[in-house]
Amino acid sequence: MAKTLAVSPLAPAAFPDLPVIDGVRFASVAAGVRYAGRTDVMLALLDAGSTMAGVFTRSATRSAPVLDCQAKIGGASDEGVAIIVNSGNSNAFTGRNGIESTRAVTSAVAAATGLPEARVFSSSTGVIGEPLPHERITAKVDELVASLDATGIAGAAKAIMTTDTFPKGSTVTVDLPGGPVKIAGIAKGSGMIAPDMATMLVYIFTDAKVPQPLLQTLVSQINDRSFNCITVDSDTSTSDTLLMGATGASGVAVTEADSAFAEALEGVFLDLAHQVVRDGEGATKFVTVTVTGAASDADARTHAMAIANSPLVKTAIAGEDPNWGRIVMAIGKSGAAADRDLLTIRFGDVLVAEKGWRSPDYREEDGARLMKEPEITISVDLGLGQGTSTVWTCDLTHGYISINADYRS
Amino acid sequence: MAKTLAVSPLAPAAFPDLPVIDGVRFASVAAGVRYAGRTDVMLALLDAGSTMAGVFTRSATRSAPVLDCQAKIGGASDEGVAIIVNSGNSNAFTGRNGIESTRAVTSAVAAATGLPEARVFSSSTGVIGEPLPHERITAKVDELVASLDATGIAGAAKAIMTTDTFPKGSTVTVDLPGGPVKIAGIAKGSGMIAPDMATMLVYIFTDAKVPQPLLQTLVSQINDRSFNCITVDSDTSTSDTLLMGATGASGVAVTEADSAFAEALEGVFLDLAHQVVRDGEGATKFVTVTVTGAASDADARTHAMAIANSPLVKTAIAGEDPNWGRIVMAIGKSGAAADRDLLTIRFGDVLVAEKGWRSPDYREEDGARLMKEPEITISVDLGLGQGTSTVWTCDLTHGYISINADYRS
Repeated sequence: MAKTLAVSPLAPAAFPDLPVIDGVRFASVAAGVRYAGRTDVMLALLDAGSTMAGVFTRSATRSAPVLDCQAKIGGASDEGVAIIVNSGNSNAFTGRNGIESTRAVTSAVAAATGLPEARVFSSSTGVIGEPLPHERITAKVDELVASLDATGIAGAAKAIMTTDTFPKGSTVTVDLPGGPVKIAGIAKGSGMIAPDMATMLVYIFTDAKVPQPLLQTLVSQINDRSFNCITVDSDTSTSDTLLMGATGASGVAVTEADSAFAEALEGVFLDLAHQVVRDGEGATKFVTVTVTGAASDADARTHAMAIANSPLVKTAIAGEDPNWGRIVMAIGKSGAAADRDLLTIRFGDVLVAEKGWRSPDYREEDGARLMKEPEITISVDLGLGQGTSTVWTCDLTHGYISINADYRS
Repeated sequence: MAKTLAVSPLAPAAFPDLPVIDGVRFASVAAGVRYAGRTDVMLALLDAGSTMAGVFTRSATRSAPVLDCQAKIGGASDEGVAIIVNSGNSNAFTGRNGIESTRAVTSAVAAATGLPEARVFSSSTGVIGEPLPHERITAKVDELVASLDATGIAGAAKAIMTTDTFPKGSTVTVDLPGGPVKIAGIAKGSGMIAPDMATMLVYIFTDAKVPQPLLQTLVSQINDRSFNCITVDSDTSTSDTLLMGATGASGVAVTEADSAFAEALEGVFLDLAHQVVRDGEGATKFVTVTVTGAASDADARTHAMAIANSPLVKTAIAGEDPNWGRIVMAIGKSGAAADRDLLTIRFGDVLVAEKGWRSPDYREEDGARLMKEPEITISVDLGLGQGTSTVWTCDLTHGYISINADYRS
């Protein structure tokens, strides 16, 4: 980023105390890809026997590293796995040079770690369309490998930031029949956030032993209910990547019957997804949009996203204006089924509108009071069926304009 | 509006000198619906024998006046037609009261003019969800009818403004085989502009003699290439209405073979549509987005709208930043077919990117120079097929946030 941004008012009080995940080590370094005076490359190395799963942007103009990850993700990781990530340059829309830069980075990591290149994943995030100065990264690979450390995950979370104003981490320990397993993850993301399959950059690790097909199923399903349900600005990145590695170092196996593991993992996914929204560019409000009573879950999601992406709804929230008419507008334009005269709208627990009109009990000051809170819930019941969806977003403020009109991230 | 906005820097130099359209008279009045110190109701009266056509928002939460117009539009107008429009309150999401308010207004106009109520159209624009104080309008109907004047169209254009910073008008005279005919139209619109079937409020009049079915066909077809191709903020209004009346007073008949009339009419539609974009809330740039080489016209439109609605593209334009990577992003997320390595992108006549990467001849200062212009053209060729689309939009600025976060329009 070209200048320092103030930390989001919605940031957690502190970065969580992430535990060591046995079987994974981390390193980060300042390679000067684009930014000065900060780390911008991180390396994670997972031991032999780890399994890997991932989800990626569905953008038609996805980046070279994303395409490379997609080609590699299904393979076996008997020898171990490496993940190398740089911030400052997304290596997206960089043509043949982009492919060559990705290969230069992954082959350098393969050479330094002894892993096959097919087990080296890479991500790049930052400006689109500039050639990646990969030699700055490859020059640092030996230093990265030499400094790998099981406690390095917090440093890795910092190295992958772009316009983020705080590093994002989450962890949970789950007691399974075979014993406890740990999960820890990091993420980055602040603008160009409307994930379509995955979000920005997310790396999650566990010492549980999870077969690759099951890990992929869990990642894909939970992603649909977490990262795919957040939006900052409706703009989908060319680089969205979520990678999850299970080292098995705990010796505790996870089976399809272990709902406790899936539930705990969903908690980590949601925590990280919400942190991305809390760091939305210019955000001052964290907004939960819940739609019920839709004709289908898909319709509910269409309505929820129409509300969450509406510039007029988002600016009203920024202005602490309980302008519920704009929610009616967003439902109307979404294209999904709605009957104006069956709509019920609530701000928090305040009934605002029902049966096609403002509730007779609604008082504007009640809506205005709720709008002053930093966390706002908008609930819409369509009165048509059983479809539901919840999505999370932030407001649209002068801060977003300043960040995106005034310089390139 | 709650405070006076500066006139858009993209406004035309002056309101055009709209001619008298024989067979139509106009009046406007200050009824105090919501705004003080300005006119806010206009009446247009078309003579017996006029034909009427219209297109309306497809919003699922469209307003009571829109539903009323849709029910009436196909009918014969042998006795003449009236159109009454208020600003300040959209009478949308107002339940049964909304229907009653619409009927109160149209029946008052019917009584004062001697027309059947089925030939009185009404529109309302302004805040959503507030009861329409229709008695303030009905109290002024006699005064409106008494002051009808063939030269009153400019006053009517002013009375229908909400957050508009200038009144919008357009006119053309067409020489047909039977003689000259005149077309004149007015429009309002500035925010909540992403028309889906029609835009905001548009009223167009001609003294040509046009059979109703032909008039409706012309209006629908041309609307698809004009008002349906503009977007300010991706938010579709609950009140979008376009009504066109042909009085036939010139005695010159238009037939399906008269392409000259259709072409002239399209010029008026486009002029008014562009004026709405030029008055986009907070706009400082008028942007034309042209997509060619798409797999289909529908795909081209999807890509063009994804670019035109992207907050990141629009803020980059506001910042005069030739950040073409964000255009790549928008194409990638649109969902329509694209091949990253076949894309060609131009700013004006400057080739920016081709074959999946920045053009070797592109110099950033050339892009930066073009971005300083008040009118910007973005051209994308997908290299896939013959589909084309052109849409028009504006930038996303601090002004938009101020207008929509700081008070209710």
